[in-house]
Amino acid sequence: MNTEIDKLNFTQNLLRKFEAEDVVNTTYKKGDILTAEGQIENNLYFIEDGAVKVYYQSELGENIIRLGYNGSILNSLSSFFNRQPSELFIEAIRETKVKILKRSVIIDIKANSLGYSEFLENVLIQQLEREIDLLHDSPSQRLERVLKRSPHLFQFIPLKYIASYLRMSPETLSRIRNS
Amino acid sequence: MNTEIDKLNFTQNLLRKFEAEDVVNTTYKKGDILTAEGQIENNLYFIEDGAVKVYYQSELGENIIRLGYNGSILNSLSSFFNRQPSELFIEAIRETKVKILKRSVIIDIKANSLGYSEFLENVLIQQLEREIDLLHDSPSQRLERVLKRSPHLFQFIPLKYIASYLRMSPETLSRIRNS
Repeated sequence: MNTEIDKLNFTQNLLRKFEAEDVVNTTYKKGDILTAEGQIENNLYFIEDGAVKVYYQSELGENIIRLGYNGSILNSLSSFFNRQPSELFIEAIRETKVKILKRSVIIDIKANSLGYSEFLENVLIQQLEREIDLLHDSPSQRLERVLKRSPHLFQFIPLKYIASYLRMSPETLSRIRNS
Repeated sequence: MNTEIDKLNFTQNLLRKFEAEDVVNTTYKKGDILTAEGQIENNLYFIEDGAVKVYYQSELGENIIRLGYNGSILNSLSSFFNRQPSELFIEAIRETKVKILKRSVIIDIKANSLGYSEFLENVLIQQLEREIDLLHDSPSQRLERVLKRSPHLFQFIPLKYIASYLRMSPETLSRIRNS
């Protein structure tokens, strides 16, 4: 039977689990792969200190779809949900301390928390905003929208990765940042 | 108290409500707006017969982010969840018969169904696929990915709107379709 304390909000329970003593702590070196394309995602990562890029590999190189830094929670979400091989890589941009929760733990938290669907609605809203970001024609508008959501992005992530995330060249990003 | 029959799956209950006698039936003419930018979304639309485009308006014109046709269920989802003004327009591409459920009905279904979070997870997976679609460099790959999900798209939607949705010119879409 669930105790009162279990019936916390999903996000609170998740954060509590990431702070628990038995969480898996790992440090990745720059270039280390947290999750590889083709792998079925079984982890949820909390970035304690460092930075990661989530990208899709195409003929023209890597397309960054997400950037994570101190405080970010992420994984290869489609694969985590639908148990299909990940289309994405997650890679450390520099030395990165990560806490890992296993899928079984998340399923347990889902079952014993309230507000999981509200959590998902929020993830979905963020995802819809990202889609609209990508469709903005003007590079400066794309930058503006992202900085509104992530004002500290440049403190944690090298400019060249932010440029890829925003679908522009590093030169363009430098220029509009300084204008 | 909920009867057994209420504790159906969220999607089943949703479809059942769309088939109920008291659902709001409306017919929109070509160019009619179902939901306007700036409006708070209170509806969920089921496209019974016809076609709609969901788009964001920028200086360069409209950017289509979703296309709906017979059987589609859609609305301005961020606005529906977060009660902020919609960034999107939903507009009939041709005469379109639509069934409308009000937000209060959806909230009631959520409360009395199982599997709402699984429903959201699936919407999220589709949304993540759309993001990766947008990042594919090759127009023919973008088309291929979309046709895998929506094989009947061209039966319902004029080519120029599909081209906008795929971020390519109508000429490019014509060419790769015939090659």
